[in-house]
Amino acid sequence: MNNISKSKNEFSVVGKRIPKLDAAQKAMGRAEYIQDIILPEMVYGKILYSRHAHAKIVSIDTSKAKALPGVLSVITGEDVPEKMKMGFYKDNPPIKKGKVWSFRDEVAAVAAKTPEIAKKALDLIEIEYEELEGIFDPEKAMEKDSPLVHERHKSNVLKLPWKLHYGDVDAAQKKAAFIVEDRFSTTWVTHCCMGTSGAIALFDNSYNLTIYTNTQIPSLAQKDFLEALKAMGLKNKRVRVIKPTIGGGFGSKLDTYAYEHIAILLAHKCGKPVKLTFDRTEEFKATSTRQPAIIDIKQGCDKDGKLLFRDIKMVLDNGAHTSWGATTPSVMMMPITSLYRVKNVRYDAKCVYTNNTYAQAMRGYGNPQATFAIESSMDMLAKKTGMDPIEFRRINRNHPGDITPQDFKITTCGMDLCLDAVEKELRKDTSKEKGVGIGVASLIHVGGGARIYKSDGCGAILKMDDYGKVNVFTGGTDMGQGLDNITAQIVAEELGLFVEDINVIHTDTDVCPWDVGAHASRSTFVAGNAALGAAKKIKQKLLEFGAKILDTAPESLVLKNRLMFVPDDLEKSIAIDKLLRKAHFSPGGTMFVADHFYDPDNENMGKDFKGNMSMTYTFGVHGVKVKVDEETGKVAVLEYVAAHDVGRAINPLLLEGQVYGGVVMGLGYALSEEVVHKNGENMNANFRDYKLFTAKDAVKIKAPILETPDKEGPFGAKGIGEPGCVPTAPAVANAIYDAVGVRIKDLPITPEKVLAALKGKNN
Amino acid sequence: MNNISKSKNEFSVVGKRIPKLDAAQKAMGRAEYIQDIILPEMVYGKILYSRHAHAKIVSIDTSKAKALPGVLSVITGEDVPEKMKMGFYKDNPPIKKGKVWSFRDEVAAVAAKTPEIAKKALDLIEIEYEELEGIFDPEKAMEKDSPLVHERHKSNVLKLPWKLHYGDVDAAQKKAAFIVEDRFSTTWVTHCCMGTSGAIALFDNSYNLTIYTNTQIPSLAQKDFLEALKAMGLKNKRVRVIKPTIGGGFGSKLDTYAYEHIAILLAHKCGKPVKLTFDRTEEFKATSTRQPAIIDIKQGCDKDGKLLFRDIKMVLDNGAHTSWGATTPSVMMMPITSLYRVKNVRYDAKCVYTNNTYAQAMRGYGNPQATFAIESSMDMLAKKTGMDPIEFRRINRNHPGDITPQDFKITTCGMDLCLDAVEKELRKDTSKEKGVGIGVASLIHVGGGARIYKSDGCGAILKMDDYGKVNVFTGGTDMGQGLDNITAQIVAEELGLFVEDINVIHTDTDVCPWDVGAHASRSTFVAGNAALGAAKKIKQKLLEFGAKILDTAPESLVLKNRLMFVPDDLEKSIAIDKLLRKAHFSPGGTMFVADHFYDPDNENMGKDFKGNMSMTYTFGVHGVKVKVDEETGKVAVLEYVAAHDVGRAINPLLLEGQVYGGVVMGLGYALSEEVVHKNGENMNANFRDYKLFTAKDAVKIKAPILETPDKEGPFGAKGIGEPGCVPTAPAVANAIYDAVGVRIKDLPITPEKVLAALKGKNN
Repeated sequence: MNNISKSKNEFSVVGKRIPKLDAAQKAMGRAEYIQDIILPEMVYGKILYSRHAHAKIVSIDTSKAKALPGVLSVITGEDVPEKMKMGFYKDNPPIKKGKVWSFRDEVAAVAAKTPEIAKKALDLIEIEYEELEGIFDPEKAMEKDSPLVHERHKSNVLKLPWKLHYGDVDAAQKKAAFIVEDRFSTTWVTHCCMGTSGAIALFDNSYNLTIYTNTQIPSLAQKDFLEALKAMGLKNKRVRVIKPTIGGGFGSKLDTYAYEHIAILLAHKCGKPVKLTFDRTEEFKATSTRQPAIIDIKQGCDKDGKLLFRDIKMVLDNGAHTSWGATTPSVMMMPITSLYRVKNVRYDAKCVYTNNTYAQAMRGYGNPQATFAIESSMDMLAKKTGMDPIEFRRINRNHPGDITPQDFKITTCGMDLCLDAVEKELRKDTSKEKGVGIGVASLIHVGGGARIYKSDGCGAILKMDDYGKVNVFTGGTDMGQGLDNITAQIVAEELGLFVEDINVIHTDTDVCPWDVGAHASRSTFVAGNAALGAAKKIKQKLLEFGAKILDTAPESLVLKNRLMFVPDDLEKSIAIDKLLRKAHFSPGGTMFVADHFYDPDNENMGKDFKGNMSMTYTFGVHGVKVKVDEETGKVAVLEYVAAHDVGRAINPLLLEGQVYGGVVMGLGYALSEEVVHKNGENMNANFRDYKLFTAKDAVKIKAPILETPDKEGPFGAKGIGEPGCVPTAPAVANAIYDAVGVRIKDLPITPEKVLAALKGKNN
Repeated sequence: MNNISKSKNEFSVVGKRIPKLDAAQKAMGRAEYIQDIILPEMVYGKILYSRHAHAKIVSIDTSKAKALPGVLSVITGEDVPEKMKMGFYKDNPPIKKGKVWSFRDEVAAVAAKTPEIAKKALDLIEIEYEELEGIFDPEKAMEKDSPLVHERHKSNVLKLPWKLHYGDVDAAQKKAAFIVEDRFSTTWVTHCCMGTSGAIALFDNSYNLTIYTNTQIPSLAQKDFLEALKAMGLKNKRVRVIKPTIGGGFGSKLDTYAYEHIAILLAHKCGKPVKLTFDRTEEFKATSTRQPAIIDIKQGCDKDGKLLFRDIKMVLDNGAHTSWGATTPSVMMMPITSLYRVKNVRYDAKCVYTNNTYAQAMRGYGNPQATFAIESSMDMLAKKTGMDPIEFRRINRNHPGDITPQDFKITTCGMDLCLDAVEKELRKDTSKEKGVGIGVASLIHVGGGARIYKSDGCGAILKMDDYGKVNVFTGGTDMGQGLDNITAQIVAEELGLFVEDINVIHTDTDVCPWDVGAHASRSTFVAGNAALGAAKKIKQKLLEFGAKILDTAPESLVLKNRLMFVPDDLEKSIAIDKLLRKAHFSPGGTMFVADHFYDPDNENMGKDFKGNMSMTYTFGVHGVKVKVDEETGKVAVLEYVAAHDVGRAINPLLLEGQVYGGVVMGLGYALSEEVVHKNGENMNANFRDYKLFTAKDAVKIKAPILETPDKEGPFGAKGIGEPGCVPTAPAVANAIYDAVGVRIKDLPITPEKVLAALKGKNN
C-alpha cells in the first residue's frame, strides 16, 4: 500500500514542482564541495602517471623529490601493500610496480605542504622506462598473434560469462520474412562532471579512517576502504565515509579509485589529513569513460512486422584494467532481451584488454550502446517491411503483464502512451522540408531497483524534534540529481508537513544507514520507499499519541498542513509541533524516531541471466526532428520530445530536469562527444577539444510525463535517473536517415561522417 | 533491571580503566575546537564592551568603523530586535541600547574579513557616555537609599522565591544543647576553561541557522536560537547546533550568551558565516563567574551531638543582569536541607543587583558555597560539643532509606563507607606535627539526574553496521569529561563488543536526540540509561535473529568478545559481525537500529521546594592534611583523600580524573582563586594575576571509590561530575583550624588572611 490510489490533486507535496532546495546555496557558492573543505594540518597529495601506454619500469629515483622542502612523503608501487587491489578482478593496485599498461597508470605519489610543492616534487621523480609494444584495437587484440596486455591471462579476451540464448534464434531466422544485419560502433565518452574528483583521508590516533570523498556508493566504498586498511595491516578498524556536495556523478563515482587509496596511503604515511583533488586535465585522463563497443546486430520479423529474433555480438574495449565496467554487458542484456517483445534472443559479448584507458559505469550502464544498435536496426527493419517506424514499434511494444525472455516482470508499462505522445508532438506539422527528418527510439530501463549486489536495500532513520521538524538519515545519495528533495517531499507528504520542515542527511556513513549506492536509477524508488516506510512508522506513533490527546481513534485522524485533525470534527485538532512537545514533556517522555530498511523483492540474475532484477521497469520513447545541412554535414536538432512512463512524478520539475540533462548528454553522445585516444594517449583532455554539449548547444526539449502509478513505488513512482540519455543517439541517427537518407552507424555522428556518407550515397 | 546484580569481575568493559578514547587526538592537536573550524567565506566578529560600570550612552558613531576597508557590518543596540533577550528574566539584550549597567555590557559589534580588521574597527567606534553612580556591594545595594541598578525593578533585591522553612527552627533552637552561629563569605571565581568561548553562525538560503558553538546544552540552545530567529522575524526555521570539541565546560556553557546572539545577528546581516571567538582577556571579562555569597548560618545539636536545626540566610551578588545563576539557591537547598540528618531547616536567600559582572552555573551550582558554610559550621559545632569532628559527622550522616525534609529519597548512600575510608587514610599517622592539621567535610549531590526543566530526559539512537561497529547518536554532551567513553563502555558491555567498536556522536542536533544538557552530574546516569536502553533493544533483536540462525532460544544466548554463543554448547556460536551481515543479506534485509528515550521518574520541586529531584544521590567525604607556615601564612596541602559513593564506577580511571579535577578546582577555590573586581571592573583578567591552581600546585590525591550499585543507574552508576569540588574548601578550612587554631571564613584562604588571623589570635 504505497499510497498510489490517490489522484494527483489529493497530494499536498508529492507531485508539486518544488525547486531544488539547495539550488540557491549552490548558485551562491555556499555549497561545500570537496575542494572547499579544509581540515587542520591538511596537506596535499598528487599523483604521477605513466609516460607510456605499455612499458617496463626499469628504475624509479624519488630521492630528489623527497629532499624538496615541504614534501612529507613520496610513495611508489613498493609502498603499496601486496593485497591492496582495486577493480572487478581485484588485480589493479593503486600504484603500479615494475610495469605500466596504460598512460593512466599511477607510478608514484607525493604529499606536500602545498599543491604547488607536490606538483614540483612530481617533476623531480626520475623514472627509467623500457617501452613495450602496445595494442589499442580490441579486434586486433583478439587475434592470435597479438601482443598480450597481461601475460598472466594468456589471452587478451577476458573470461567473462556474457552470453545468453533464449528461444531458438536460428530457427526463428528461418521463419523471418524480413531480416536486417549490420555493425554499429561507439567510442569513448566521459562524464564531464563539473566538480572534479577528490578525496581527503585522515586517520585518528587509533588508525580509524575518515575519508571525505566524491562517491555515489558510500556503503560499498566503506567496504572497499576497510579492505584497503586490512591490506595495510589495520584490522578491525572503523571507516567513516563522508560525501561532500557532489558536482555530478553519472556513474563516475560508482567505484573506489586509485586517488582514494593513494590519499589513504599518504595520510597513513605522513600522519596528517591528505587532500587529493583532480584538476580538469587529470579528470579527463584519469577517470573512466563509457565503454567503446563494436556491435553486430541481426534482427528479423514476420510479414506483419512482429519481431521474431534478435542476435547480437559485441566486442568491448576493456582497456588495460578490469573495472566494474567489464560488467556492463549484464545490463546491456536488458534492452537486448526485453526492449520490445522478442522471444528468440542471442547475445555474446567479449571484453578485450588493450593498452587504452579503462571504462566504468556511466549513466545507462551499457544501455545507450545497446539501444543505439537495437533502435537503429529497428528503424532499418521497419524500412525493409515498408512500415511506418512508429507503427512498427507500436506493433512490437511491451505490454503490462508481459514476462520477457529474461524473466523481467513488466507490471506497469506506458510505452503505448509514450509512442502516442511523441507521434502527436513530432507529426503535428506534416510539411516535409528538405534536409529535415524525424526519428524515434524507445527504451526500457530498471525503474524499481536493480539487484546486482547481495542487497538492493536502503535504510532510513527519521527523527522528529520538538518543533515539527524532521531529520532524515538516509542511505540514499544525492549527487546533484535531487534525491534530497524527493525524500523530503515523500516524508512531508506522509507526515502532513511542509517540505521545508524536512532536512535530509545523506552524507556520512556514521550517521546514515546502508545503501547499495546511487545507480540503476534506483534512488527515488528504493531510498524513497525506505524513507516512506520510516515515515509510516512515525506517523502511526503520532496518530496513536494524538488519538489519546484528542480523544478519538487513530484511524479518524489526518495529518496535513502541520496539523493533526479529525476531518469531520475540526474541534479535534492540534498543531503537530505542539503534539510533539506534549509527548516529549509527558511523564516518561516520548521521542519520535523510526527506522526502516527497504530491500525490494527483486531477484539476482541466475546463471542463465534470468531473474526479475527490478521491481518495475521504466519505459520511454524519444522523438527528434533534425535538419541536416548537406553542404557541411552539420546536424541541427529542431525539436526534441522525450516521453517517459515514470509511474508517478514525485516532483515534475526535477523529473524534467533529469530528462533534459539526460537528453543533452545523449545528444553529445550522438553528435559531438569523443575522448580521442592516439596509441592509448588521451589527445583532448580539455573542454576546448572535448566537444561537450553545453548550455548553448541545448535545444528545447519537451518531456511529457506519463503516469502509470506503480504499486511498488513510493506514491507510485519509478526511477528516471538514466533513461534520458538512453535512446537519444538512435533517435538522432534515425532522424538523420529520415532527413537525408544516410545512416551513420558509428558514434559520434560528426559533420565529417555525415558529409562522407552523403558523398558515398551520391556516388 | 539495570544489570546491577553482577559483581565487578563479571563485566568485560564496564569497570575497566580504559583511557579516554580522544586523549591522543587531543594531545596531538588533532581535535577540532571552535578555533580550528574554518568555513568557506567565513568572516570574523568582534564585540565592543562598555567603558563604564554604569552609564548612559549619549551617542554612538559607527561611521568610521563602517568605512574601514574589510568591514562588512557594524551593529549596535539599535540593530537588535526588540524581543531578542537573554537570561532567566529574558530581559538582557545581546547589545545594550541607551544604557550600560556593567563593564561587561556589549555596546557594539563588527564583522570583518580578518580578526585584525574587526579589532581595528572597534577602535573606530566613537561612544559618548554619561557616567552614573554604580553600586558594587550587595548589602549596600539592599539599603533603602541605594542607587537602583534597574529603575524599572524599583528595588535592587530580586523578587525570587528562595525561602523555605521545614519543621520548626525556632522551637528546635530552644531545645538545642549547643549552637554555633557565624558568617561566611565567598567571592567570584571563574571556570578558566582552556578552550575559550566561541561560535560560528551561518544561514542557508532559506534562513535556516547552523551554529557551531561551545555549549553544554545543545537542545536548549537550539530552543533559545529558534526564539532569537523568531525575534528577528524568521519564523518556522530550522536551527542546527553543532558542538565542536570543547576545552572544558564546568557549567560555563549552560546558557546561551551574547556572543552567540551577536554572531547570529552579524551572520544574518552580512550573509556569510561569522566566527566570534574570545581571547583570554575576553574569556575572563565577558564570561560568567560563580556567585559570590554572604552566608549567615546557625546550627544546633542536642547533647549527644544530633543536629536539631539549621538556619541560613544568604545574600548573593546578582551582578547587573539576571542569568540562570540567580537560580543557584534552588540547588543550595539540597545540602542545606539534606546534608546530614536535620529535620528543622530554614533558608532565605536574596539575590541583589549590583553593577558587577553576573554569575552563572559553575560546577556544583551553589553547592560549594553552601557546603563551605555548613561544613565549617559543623566543625565548629563538633568543637563546641567536644566531639571528634569525624565522629560528629558519623552521628549525623545520611542513611539509605532516609527521606530528607525536602523529600529527597535516599536510596543508596555510602556516606559511612566514605567516612571510614577518609578516617583510615588521614589518621594512619597519628603523630602531631606543629602547624599540621587535618580537616574533613562531606557532600551530597544529585546523582541520578535533576529535574529542573519539564523533561530531564535524554534520547539515544544506536545503529550497527555490517562490521560489528556501532554508532551511538546520543543527546548527552561530552565536554571533556569523558561521557563518550562512558557511553561506549555501557554499549560495548551490553552488546558484547569492544569499546573501540563503539563510536559516539554527540555533536549535532540534526543527528542527536534531545537532552536537557550536561549539568547536574546527570550525564552518566541519564545519557547512560538512554544508551543502555537502546542497546538492550538492539540486543534483543540480535538475540532473536541469532536464535534462528543458531537454532536455539534467545535466552540461552550470550554476547561477549564480539561473539554470540550458547555458553554450554559452544558449537552454537557466531561472530557478531557475521551475524549482522547474515541479517542484512537475508531476503528483505534487516537493519539493526534502535532508539530509546530515558526520562527518569524524578520530580520537579513543588512550590514549597519539596520533591525528589533526582533518582539517587551521590555522597562523599573529603579529608585533607595541611601544613600552615605560621611565618608566611602559606598553606601547604600534604595529603588529600576524596572518597565517594559512586554507585558503580563505569570507568574508575575517568572517575578518578573527575575527582582529581574537581579537587584541584576546589583547592583553587579554597586557597587562591579570585576574580578581583574594583568598582565593577575586572582587575586580573589573565593567568598571571588570576591564581588558578595549576598542575604544579596539584597535590597527590587519593580517591577511594566506594560502590553501592544503584538500581536505577546504568550498571548501578551514579553521577560524579561535580562532587569533587564541593566540600574541598571547608575541608581545607577545617584542617587549617586543626593545624593552627584559626578559622578563615572568607574564601579564598590567602596567606594574608591566615597571617592576619594568626596575628589576631596571638594578640
